[in-house]
Amino acid sequence: MLGVRRRLGRQLSSTRQGTDLLTELAQDTTGLLPNQDSQLSAVSDDARHVLHPWADLSSLGTHESLIISEAKGVHVVDGNGKTYIDSIGGMWCVTLGFGREELVEAIADQARRMAYYTPFGDVSSEPAAKLAAMLSERSPGDLNRVQFATGGSTAAESAVRIAHYYQKSQGRPDKIHILSRRNAYHGGTYLAASLSGKLADRTLFHYETDIVHHMKSPGFDPDISDVSAEAFLADLIDDMERTIAEVGADRIACFIAEPIMASGGVLVPPPGYQKATLDLCRKHDILYISDEVVTGFGRLGHFFASETRFDIVPDMIVTAKGLTSGYQPLGAVLISDRIAAAMSEAAPKDKPVFSNGFTYSGHPVACAAAIANIEIMEREDICGHVRKVGPYFIDKLKALRSSPIVYAVRGDHLMACVECTVGMETGPTARNMALAQRVDRYCEEAGLLVRPYENLCILSPPLIVTERHIDSIVAILGASIERAGKDLRAGEI
Amino acid sequence: MLGVRRRLGRQLSSTRQGTDLLTELAQDTTGLLPNQDSQLSAVSDDARHVLHPWADLSSLGTHESLIISEAKGVHVVDGNGKTYIDSIGGMWCVTLGFGREELVEAIADQARRMAYYTPFGDVSSEPAAKLAAMLSERSPGDLNRVQFATGGSTAAESAVRIAHYYQKSQGRPDKIHILSRRNAYHGGTYLAASLSGKLADRTLFHYETDIVHHMKSPGFDPDISDVSAEAFLADLIDDMERTIAEVGADRIACFIAEPIMASGGVLVPPPGYQKATLDLCRKHDILYISDEVVTGFGRLGHFFASETRFDIVPDMIVTAKGLTSGYQPLGAVLISDRIAAAMSEAAPKDKPVFSNGFTYSGHPVACAAAIANIEIMEREDICGHVRKVGPYFIDKLKALRSSPIVYAVRGDHLMACVECTVGMETGPTARNMALAQRVDRYCEEAGLLVRPYENLCILSPPLIVTERHIDSIVAILGASIERAGKDLRAGEI
Ligand SMILES: Cc1ncc(COP(=O)(O)O)c(C=O)c1O
Ligand SMILES: Cc1ncc(COP(=O)(O)O)c(C=O)c1O
Repeated sequence: MLGVRRRLGRQLSSTRQGTDLLTELAQDTTGLLPNQDSQLSAVSDDARHVLHPWADLSSLGTHESLIISEAKGVHVVDGNGKTYIDSIGGMWCVTLGFGREELVEAIADQARRMAYYTPFGDVSSEPAAKLAAMLSERSPGDLNRVQFATGGSTAAESAVRIAHYYQKSQGRPDKIHILSRRNAYHGGTYLAASLSGKLADRTLFHYETDIVHHMKSPGFDPDISDVSAEAFLADLIDDMERTIAEVGADRIACFIAEPIMASGGVLVPPPGYQKATLDLCRKHDILYISDEVVTGFGRLGHFFASETRFDIVPDMIVTAKGLTSGYQPLGAVLISDRIAAAMSEAAPKDKPVFSNGFTYSGHPVACAAAIANIEIMEREDICGHVRKVGPYFIDKLKALRSSPIVYAVRGDHLMACVECTVGMETGPTARNMALAQRVDRYCEEAGLLVRPYENLCILSPPLIVTERHIDSIVAILGASIERAGKDLRAGEI
Repeated sequence: MLGVRRRLGRQLSSTRQGTDLLTELAQDTTGLLPNQDSQLSAVSDDARHVLHPWADLSSLGTHESLIISEAKGVHVVDGNGKTYIDSIGGMWCVTLGFGREELVEAIADQARRMAYYTPFGDVSSEPAAKLAAMLSERSPGDLNRVQFATGGSTAAESAVRIAHYYQKSQGRPDKIHILSRRNAYHGGTYLAASLSGKLADRTLFHYETDIVHHMKSPGFDPDISDVSAEAFLADLIDDMERTIAEVGADRIACFIAEPIMASGGVLVPPPGYQKATLDLCRKHDILYISDEVVTGFGRLGHFFASETRFDIVPDMIVTAKGLTSGYQPLGAVLISDRIAAAMSEAAPKDKPVFSNGFTYSGHPVACAAAIANIEIMEREDICGHVRKVGPYFIDKLKALRSSPIVYAVRGDHLMACVECTVGMETGPTARNMALAQRVDRYCEEAGLLVRPYENLCILSPPLIVTERHIDSIVAILGASIERAGKDLRAGEI
């Protein structure tokens, strides 16, 4: 289960292969020496006082967290001084890698000069204005208007609220329903969590179900599917048409969709899906919100993937994560000029206030980090680099399919996952999950952090990974899979 | 209307008195020279590309924002080099004032050392663990468990979601309704905006109305009320009892309340209100969420006001803003051990994952800023300082009631507001609002930023204001009120 893994006594034993690789990998972290005292109190303070996102609630107070203390490049160091190669990229977000002095300086300079002033009404800051212009320049079509938020959830919420405002302003007050998909992930606030469609996440919380509709999950894997991509796509579009007919097009405000589902398990739709769904939306005056929190900012080799990769110019794009390389909390919705102008023209004369946003919308320090992040990305041609190493990464990973415990390997450029299986079982069964957790544990022992989720190992390394780093990641992962496979055959799982 | 003010050609003329004060006030900003070019492009980039929170949507694209470029102490400087005394405190948040090198260093050090790693599951960072322990130590009762968020809205959303989880985990799946009040403000996400009860903010967005219930606004002003505090309180409690009976106690999860309403217009409940509402909640197993986003972190002279000022130990406290002095986006919910333990014990064995939180929950850089913020607050005894200057501030402001255009002056320590009135009219009428905007404009011309909202001027200066700063703030505000009063008598408003 996502993030709910046991430390299992924090064994430091390593596979032979893992140890060799680590010695080599650890080179750029030499000199990073965590303080043992603060490490000890961090572990106990954490257990006693923190309620983590996606915590294993049943172990509250007794869990022993992995404390990440230092980081440099693609490596992180825990409180015991153990070095790992980070193949999670922080959490899909540390795109430029850790310890970038230029980002640190941009953050410090802005914090010193003007750390914060209200963004409400008609007050602004230089970093927010400049970043909005830079984002507009790099986004597709007429997406030239930016509303800032504090992360992905608040940006996704803003996008949906903007869709509501837009529809009502156009004289369609009933268009409030929202289309989403099973396995989607759009965030942790009440509405964003309700839009999300991961069954494993649905626990004892309350969810909005009146205006949220989940359609079929679009993940298609040509390696294992027994239907053709065309047939699969046709079925998805049928499902969407049926849902629109059932809910009523005159009641649907918007459709929100990740171009490739990330947290749901790196689910890649069949070719043509994004375009076909956009066409359906256009036909029914349903706004199309492309959630590029993960796919944006270079992970697929472009600032935004919607147009360059999937041939769509959506009405809004939601972005966060890679926007600041994770160094600062920030999110944004990019809005089509057409939508913004329509809302502006139709704003009620007696009450034109656009009451959406946050104290920290466009926080100057976060915006300064994002500006420096874009400048570095362009100077170092990070997108070009990803277009080069991305296919290499996927190719290398695909070779792991030869293991009997690997059911599938899928992904696109620097987002990928390996799905584990016990024999013929598929999906997140208890045994499959135990198997994946074993792989995860062996990776961690050998100095590689992957993201465990159900029976998957999810990989989204910093975009600066080289082919050499990729070789190391795949070698450790491969060795860990082999080890877990042996355990399975020995009846130990 | 909140933040929707016109720049009116950005006149730089000043009242005589304003000019004198400014010369004096500007001293600690000498040397801050904004760059004219970046100022020009910031104004046009902002108009072209930013959709501000609470923007005047009808002027989208043509508005000319006030760009705040530099800041030091209690002063900010706009892009034209004009200095203002900031009596908004950023937006209720820059408690320690601007340009604090110690906060800058804490931010830079953490960004350099380890800018970000996932907080999901059982992974943590030293700053998050340490801050959680520090918050627990300073919060009332058994509030010792912290879930981090990215600001006030996400923290408020988390608190309500936790209440949902708790009630369901205790076998009461129907307890999902939420009690709030008219004039409340809890944020900008869908549910937080729905919990908010400011009529002026209800525009063309969609709001959750099935599970949200607004009770009477609790604001009581002994200076102008024609009923006694006791009678007013009795009526509020009656209203709450009636609402609970109507909705059904077995369907209500929680009550969320600011101890003193901030954005709603600095509305102070009658004495005993917080305690009486808590008692009602206890009686009906309704969790009490105290939203201290504004009242916490020293604004009322204590880290948290709930217990020290209002004699209540709530089940959860929501905090943000002053938590980092606004230097970083951060929010948190403090949760009672009793609630956390109950949830942990009742977590479903097959699905113990607590699926609430955000990528940037407990962001290490933001937590490092919060830790330094608390250390400075204690070293400089900021709370003690506020307990001293707070009553001085309110006293000085109360003297403004002698003006015929001032209907009311109310507040508590360093949160206050002045309500403007044309003759006998009360409330946010068009003329009252025009009058308040005139006051606001004259303040701005004279080098004082106050927060215009409806017919109010809201004041929440940095907590480091001295009696001398307060004298200046009140003098400029008084002169601006006098000038606006003259305009009114001359028939110009
Ligand atoms: C596609 C997508 N949208 C939205 C979010 C929510 O972002 P945040 O956690 O910053 O609120 C995420 C987070 O993983 C995401 O992957
Ligand atoms: C009492 C209160 N709660 C919550 C919020 C929302 O905080 P944020 O704007 O950081 O999301 C605010 C913001 O003004 C507030 O005053």
